[in-house]
Amino acid sequence: MIKAKIIGAGGYGGVGIIELLLGHPKVKIQTLVAKTNGGTSIGELYPHLQDFCNLPILFPDDPEAAEPADVTFFATPDRVAMSQAEGLVEEGSRIVDYSGDFRFPSIKTYKDYAGRIGLPAEHEAPDLLPKAVYGLVELRRDEFKKDVRIVGNAGCFAVASILGLAPAVKYKLVDFGSIVCDAKSGVSGAGKTPNPSFHYPARYEQMNAYRLSGHQHVCEIEQELARLAGTEIVLTFTPQVVPACRGILACLYGTLVGGISLSNAMDAYKVFHKDNQFVRVLDRDAAVGTMEVRGGNYCNLVVDVDERSNRLRVISYIDNLVKGQAGNALQNMNLLFGFPEDMGLRRLGIFP
Amino acid sequence: MIKAKIIGAGGYGGVGIIELLLGHPKVKIQTLVAKTNGGTSIGELYPHLQDFCNLPILFPDDPEAAEPADVTFFATPDRVAMSQAEGLVEEGSRIVDYSGDFRFPSIKTYKDYAGRIGLPAEHEAPDLLPKAVYGLVELRRDEFKKDVRIVGNAGCFAVASILGLAPAVKYKLVDFGSIVCDAKSGVSGAGKTPNPSFHYPARYEQMNAYRLSGHQHVCEIEQELARLAGTEIVLTFTPQVVPACRGILACLYGTLVGGISLSNAMDAYKVFHKDNQFVRVLDRDAAVGTMEVRGGNYCNLVVDVDERSNRLRVISYIDNLVKGQAGNALQNMNLLFGFPEDMGLRRLGIFP
Amino acid sequence: MIKAKIIGAGGYGGVGIIELLLGHPKVKIQTLVAKTNGGTSIGELYPHLQDFCNLPILFPDDPEAAEPADVTFFATPDRVAMSQAEGLVEEGSRIVDYSGDFRFPSIKTYKDYAGRIGLPAEHEAPDLLPKAVYGLVELRRDEFKKDVRIVGNAGCFAVASILGLAPAVKYKLVDFGSIVCDAKSGVSGAGKTPNPSFHYPARYEQMNAYRLSGHQHVCEIEQELARLAGTEIVLTFTPQVVPACRGILACLYGTLVGGISLSNAMDAYKVFHKDNQFVRVLDRDAAVGTMEVRGGNYCNLVVDVDERSNRLRVISYIDNLVKGQAGNALQNMNLLFGFPEDMGLRRLGIFP
Amino acid sequence: MIKAKIIGAGGYGGVGIIELLLGHPKVKIQTLVAKTNGGTSIGELYPHLQDFCNLPILFPDDPEAAEPADVTFFATPDRVAMSQAEGLVEEGSRIVDYSGDFRFPSIKTYKDYAGRIGLPAEHEAPDLLPKAVYGLVELRRDEFKKDVRIVGNAGCFAVASILGLAPAVKYKLVDFGSIVCDAKSGVSGAGKTPNPSFHYPARYEQMNAYRLSGHQHVCEIEQELARLAGTEIVLTFTPQVVPACRGILACLYGTLVGGISLSNAMDAYKVFHKDNQFVRVLDRDAAVGTMEVRGGNYCNLVVDVDERSNRLRVISYIDNLVKGQAGNALQNMNLLFGFPEDMGLRRLGIFP
Repeated sequence: MIKAKIIGAGGYGGVGIIELLLGHPKVKIQTLVAKTNGGTSIGELYPHLQDFCNLPILFPDDPEAAEPADVTFFATPDRVAMSQAEGLVEEGSRIVDYSGDFRFPSIKTYKDYAGRIGLPAEHEAPDLLPKAVYGLVELRRDEFKKDVRIVGNAGCFAVASILGLAPAVKYKLVDFGSIVCDAKSGVSGAGKTPNPSFHYPARYEQMNAYRLSGHQHVCEIEQELARLAGTEIVLTFTPQVVPACRGILACLYGTLVGGISLSNAMDAYKVFHKDNQFVRVLDRDAAVGTMEVRGGNYCNLVVDVDERSNRLRVISYIDNLVKGQAGNALQNMNLLFGFPEDMGLRRLGIFP
Repeated sequence: MIKAKIIGAGGYGGVGIIELLLGHPKVKIQTLVAKTNGGTSIGELYPHLQDFCNLPILFPDDPEAAEPADVTFFATPDRVAMSQAEGLVEEGSRIVDYSGDFRFPSIKTYKDYAGRIGLPAEHEAPDLLPKAVYGLVELRRDEFKKDVRIVGNAGCFAVASILGLAPAVKYKLVDFGSIVCDAKSGVSGAGKTPNPSFHYPARYEQMNAYRLSGHQHVCEIEQELARLAGTEIVLTFTPQVVPACRGILACLYGTLVGGISLSNAMDAYKVFHKDNQFVRVLDRDAAVGTMEVRGGNYCNLVVDVDERSNRLRVISYIDNLVKGQAGNALQNMNLLFGFPEDMGLRRLGIFP
Repeated sequence: MIKAKIIGAGGYGGVGIIELLLGHPKVKIQTLVAKTNGGTSIGELYPHLQDFCNLPILFPDDPEAAEPADVTFFATPDRVAMSQAEGLVEEGSRIVDYSGDFRFPSIKTYKDYAGRIGLPAEHEAPDLLPKAVYGLVELRRDEFKKDVRIVGNAGCFAVASILGLAPAVKYKLVDFGSIVCDAKSGVSGAGKTPNPSFHYPARYEQMNAYRLSGHQHVCEIEQELARLAGTEIVLTFTPQVVPACRGILACLYGTLVGGISLSNAMDAYKVFHKDNQFVRVLDRDAAVGTMEVRGGNYCNLVVDVDERSNRLRVISYIDNLVKGQAGNALQNMNLLFGFPEDMGLRRLGIFP
Repeated sequence: MIKAKIIGAGGYGGVGIIELLLGHPKVKIQTLVAKTNGGTSIGELYPHLQDFCNLPILFPDDPEAAEPADVTFFATPDRVAMSQAEGLVEEGSRIVDYSGDFRFPSIKTYKDYAGRIGLPAEHEAPDLLPKAVYGLVELRRDEFKKDVRIVGNAGCFAVASILGLAPAVKYKLVDFGSIVCDAKSGVSGAGKTPNPSFHYPARYEQMNAYRLSGHQHVCEIEQELARLAGTEIVLTFTPQVVPACRGILACLYGTLVGGISLSNAMDAYKVFHKDNQFVRVLDRDAAVGTMEVRGGNYCNLVVDVDERSNRLRVISYIDNLVKGQAGNALQNMNLLFGFPEDMGLRRLGIFP
């Protein structure tokens, strides 16, 4: 059994990894830390957990919060993990960070990312970047075999977009200049902190696009696609919020290069994802929608070709809090420790 | 005062036009007809109307249902209006039909349309097509000056898409082969009849794309854009349903042709829509979302240029039951009778 | 035309009265004031209003905010109106206050009320209480004929509860010791300020009871019922929140006194409410639910007798933001100025 | 491992027990049967199950559907189980039936029940009633030690009401003539079949009471309370539906008999439920709401005394599809087979 510490245990990202770790046969949750919710217990804060986990939530400056763990999850805002990672790596802990701190090997890309969300351009721990890997197992499985100490867990929109576009880019099915990602998220993607936009009466009938000037997840989507393409890729990305709690539905478009048929596209997707047990390549008629993946770690991809307009269209959907966050984090952790990739991730959702 | 008859009064399209006509100073609702809900009164069926309108709902074969009216609204499925229009036109009634029966001057386009939704390819009243106009005032205002007897009220997705794409096509801002419409609708767009997909427990957390093989509204979007372009246009259209009641949010994309800037695009949109009092051209920061237009006859257009990817992006949103249906129908009726275009349409919504 | 000033214009209570006053033929909105939202315009804050009203929202200390008006609406928290009322009354303005400041002629009752929500026990303007009336026209219509200057607009739960219990108490249909009010509200009742309990993801599937130790609306319900009964009444009241935006559904129970039948009860309710045009007395089968009154100023009462258990049961439902707040406020204003009681209140809602 | 057959596998009750049985260490699902959904597989019908269970759904007349099982769950409408139970009992299968067929030892009570929902008054298998037990383990644990072959799984409203009232009745805390149950349910309680009342647009803002003339669950609530009281009990019951998917929140009221304090009441509830591991007795401040029990088999009881009005008030809440249906059914099955009562029932929900 390895011991886990969760920093930022009180938010949706924290509770998500706690729920999953409680069902993982090789991990014991040892320490919960949170700035805002310190001083209470996790069962008080999230009563659905009370019969399963009732650990205290420690303030960051509580000496017990410093007790070493084998794995530390940072379910925290940007720049928390980068300020603490060095010490943790030295004491031997591996790190899975939910923020953008360790998603970008290139300092230049980090600057672009940081600028989009108003953060300082300087990375505080550039020396650790070589020990970090971008946290999307489906694209980076091999790199986990090296001496990885830190995972920069992928962003929720990025997971849906990258998994849905990777085969098209890798096999050059589409014109690289033609890619559009139109991505809709449920409200839980914005986290637990109340906000006028996510207040129930202001949201129950509200659909909107936001951050048109440049959502920060674009950086990692383009980074990962460029790696596959062997060339730079610039795409259009439109984040939206709809009145659901969970789920991301991303519609991905690209103009087909000469003569690619639906069956070619399907083949390419199936080959690309053949070892990715959490990615399902579906045809049109098998498709249902986000409730199908609610609570699960799956990414469903409906692959379609619109012959009339000569366009590839992929509908990619995930549970933003599982494959888009905590589930993906656990999948990363499994690889960090050599556990089977799906260990603790075969959780069955509830319907309806 | 003109007299109105509403056929299909019991559905959402029927109640929508009743709500609006009750506030119109020049129209008196005279007759309500419905196949399913005949034998009751509109106030019984829709209790929120009971203190405002309590007319009986007549069965279609009730002799009183045949009493002539100045305007007949068909809030009915396809092929109902085309089977009754001839007699009505002869007796002098003007017709606003919600279905696709009279949207297509070309029999060939009708066939394409009909085939997409499993209807017979033959139009039953081809001789009436020259007396009909496509029912989107913003694009067809001049034609209402001719001897129009029938309006084929535009489809809900089509309204949002056409108004948002028309300036780009007319002024050739984008490559015509690059257009993508990604359109999300609330559930009311599917009408009043219960269905497993729209059953509350199966929908409250469900987002999905559907009819990927070809939604029927594509025909009219392409027809109207081709008219503006002077050449055929084929685009990619992805209809989706999200867990809201009202609202359509359409994200419209096209690759910019050389050197078009955001300010060029804004100018083009403002010029195109300068006489369209129900279309608002907004910049990014003014945008809110569908609740802003709930209950109103507006189409809001957020015009954006993504310089990085050289793409025009327009976010177009409407209330699918107002500008996407009954409000648009009333706007058409106003033009048919020479009333001010906004008569009865300045209804203030409620928030939240 | 009388001139209206709205203090607290930025909240749901403010926007609600603005929406209604815009349709009132005898009132002109002159001044909008708000502490939090000062410096913007109402159309910017609530874009659905922008084509109907675009007045600036003034900060309270803006000299223009002091311009006298014929009627001042306080859509503000408790203790704002009582601190400003004296000056306003002196300059001749009449006041409709949404808070509890002027609901209680008795200082003792005010103390009870204030204690329940953690306010100081001392009333700041006790000399004005004789000029104030409890703001529920259906029970206090006659008092408006006197020299009333201030209305303490009834609380939302109180409106539904009092209108549903008044006939039973007045005609002594039930044992006064047996009354239970079980009242469910949509989330908008809690106002516009974001809060963890009303954050979309925490609310979309959440039903809960709250403030079991004593909701403040109990004071006014008991005050009004005691007036009708001629004796003190103490009842049990359970406020609840469910995942809807608008609506209150109150189930009201009392043990029947000897021999009262359903038909007796119906008669009593119809007689009591015969002059109350916004109260509808319905039988079981006519009942639909809160969507029936959404956007309207109605209170629907389903009167029922459970013979098996010898109990009167009344289901009372309103739109909490209309008959439970702004609509009721306007009804009060109409009486203050001698306008017809329903002036500006015959607004038709939208469905669905 | 025992083998399970599920009849009515396609509805919410069917999928609920499948989800739970997949996590039960002593049960193997052998056969799925459904009238409407026969001919497909469970994974096609409920895609979230596809990686966990993909058994075919057999039509009832398929010979394989007749293969004997150790336990047969009837997730079917009334009168299906009673028509098949005899043969199953003879072949040695034990039965858990979701309907009212086997809830009532008394034929007279069955008649009352059947009449309330328009069923024939005659029971088809009265000889089996002595082999049946009312399926609420918390009240009937001892009877499972006898030769029980059939369980009449408790109704969802009944579970919440009975568990919340039983201690008050058993220990005579309240006047038996004063009991009121005000019970709110999410929409999933009405099952999977689409219906105008549960169509998303007609429900998303709708709260309503229904079946005021006598909901069928009253029969079993009164039956179980009478057993505890040693005398007949007649109460008032008001079923309501609110716009949530899952959850029942029942507010239970009774006039206290002389001198009972909150602390007396708490003690009584804690004693009564001390061996009931799925019942939590909470005080006011610990209460959250239905999301706290979503997906779990718990019944939370907030015990409160309103001293002012001398009334006991208990807020009882469950997940209607778990403790109100499939979870309760599994708990019953565990006792039928001598398994630990909570086997397979310690499933952790998801939040939010």
